[in-house]
Amino acid sequence: MRIYDLIIIGAGPAGITAGVYASRRRLDFLIISPDVGGQAAWSGGIENYTGYQFITGPELAVKFQEHIRSYEAVLKEGEEAVSLLKDKGAFLVKTDKDNYYARSVVIASGKRPKELGVPGEKEFKNRGLTYCAICDGPLFRDKDVVVVGGGNSALDAVLQMSGVARKIYVVNSAPSLAGDAVMRQKVGEAGNVTVFNAAQVVSVSGGKFVERVKIRNSAGENELQAQGVFVEIGLIPNSAFSREVEKNAAGEIMVDARNQTNIPGIFAAGDVTDVPEKQIIVAAGEGAKAALGAFRFLSMNQF
Amino acid sequence: MRIYDLIIIGAGPAGITAGVYASRRRLDFLIISPDVGGQAAWSGGIENYTGYQFITGPELAVKFQEHIRSYEAVLKEGEEAVSLLKDKGAFLVKTDKDNYYARSVVIASGKRPKELGVPGEKEFKNRGLTYCAICDGPLFRDKDVVVVGGGNSALDAVLQMSGVARKIYVVNSAPSLAGDAVMRQKVGEAGNVTVFNAAQVVSVSGGKFVERVKIRNSAGENELQAQGVFVEIGLIPNSAFSREVEKNAAGEIMVDARNQTNIPGIFAAGDVTDVPEKQIIVAAGEGAKAALGAFRFLSMNQF
Repeated sequence: MRIYDLIIIGAGPAGITAGVYASRRRLDFLIISPDVGGQAAWSGGIENYTGYQFITGPELAVKFQEHIRSYEAVLKEGEEAVSLLKDKGAFLVKTDKDNYYARSVVIASGKRPKELGVPGEKEFKNRGLTYCAICDGPLFRDKDVVVVGGGNSALDAVLQMSGVARKIYVVNSAPSLAGDAVMRQKVGEAGNVTVFNAAQVVSVSGGKFVERVKIRNSAGENELQAQGVFVEIGLIPNSAFSREVEKNAAGEIMVDARNQTNIPGIFAAGDVTDVPEKQIIVAAGEGAKAALGAFRFLSMNQF
Repeated sequence: MRIYDLIIIGAGPAGITAGVYASRRRLDFLIISPDVGGQAAWSGGIENYTGYQFITGPELAVKFQEHIRSYEAVLKEGEEAVSLLKDKGAFLVKTDKDNYYARSVVIASGKRPKELGVPGEKEFKNRGLTYCAICDGPLFRDKDVVVVGGGNSALDAVLQMSGVARKIYVVNSAPSLAGDAVMRQKVGEAGNVTVFNAAQVVSVSGGKFVERVKIRNSAGENELQAQGVFVEIGLIPNSAFSREVEKNAAGEIMVDARNQTNIPGIFAAGDVTDVPEKQIIVAAGEGAKAALGAFRFLSMNQF
């Protein structure tokens, strides 16, 4: 049974930076992640990653990938952690494909978009229904689309689509739009946006691709003709696999100033944690702290 | 009396990143710092700032400066904070030149090199005696130099100078060299290095520039002929001006996972804090957290 020094779960800014530091400390480690780049890869323009005045999310994600690939890091891409347990004096990380053991773990698994939980959602995912306006928006030129949500990320999707799509319907569960005042004003000024407040999506339907979205509000049900659905109703932490790690009410893993969790040897970094700032530069810094914390843990706990 | 939203003390990676975030949140703020770039500007090759596979310290410092200057941030360069007090419901930052008031403060003042405290040190500072081998090393081509210290930064200076200087004397107060095994081995292999262990510098003397360094060990005193002295005996936090802020035994400001100090409204980030990882990417991430923490503090405490 091979026991790694460290397993890093996730390959967004936190996981990649943890990997860079683990490489430089010559740890025997593994990165496990369904994808590389994390949410950063979905960002439009980034102006607050110190050192880069302006870079797009996909560009920064490529730089991160090149950076980690310049080391001999083993990246298990396309694998997802399903459980994390103590087993035989080490940590056992089970993925959907294999089992791995390590003496320390950095959880940097980030967040994923919340799902609607309505009929048709799974069926039409990537067939008109998307959780990433920035990735897929350009595919909907001159189509009619529904944006679900009323916060900043929904408004961001609306503004991005207002110059691309023909008509945009916003389905917002709250009585009025949230998000920044500046963004709400811009949405109000866009000529092709219809907002349904206090409204829910009931179902998504169509043929091979999305054709109709049924919504409901106090006035009753209504069927919108649309070829695209952008779900922007928030994010949930990818923390369910780590049952024994302490979390807050939102499911975020609780860490101290050194990125330690309640379990010695398990560290966490980035958007999956209860650090309130969900920012790329913060995730990168926290990833470095977590990897160096794991290194220190390994030095002080000789196996 | 003008009261700023925020004063950032320091303009290294933590202070600059705090400034970028404060600008983007449109805070009315000021950065006060004797210099820009912090210790990062003194680094040789940097290979662990995620996104840049390789960049030198001075290059990264220039990118940081360009980044902050792309915003309308007010940078009081050449001013040093001498005290931080509560005064009339705000924080008063006194510098060596002026007084400033703010509703919140981010301390990102970093660390500075420890001094020897021997006769001649002040007199010959920048006249042969330096605290920054990376900055000044190239000036000592074919000279004889003394490196004071025995840890990683001293060994780094020795290795950097071994291809530049003629002879290198190492004056190490401990009975043997500390620092990484790899570095100690390289120092041992260099042909032009003489190590004095368990030895102290007694004085530095000369004419216009350094000419002699007197040292002492158990065998007695010894005078080395040298034109350069590199002091590499560690760093101390620039935290003395903030008397009421809680610190650890090393003088580092204690922060929680959100970069709050013991005083509400005062945040700290980077090498001046008790976060053990003294890394550029960590300082940058912590600077972002501190600025966003200050922003949140200001939103919740309307003045």
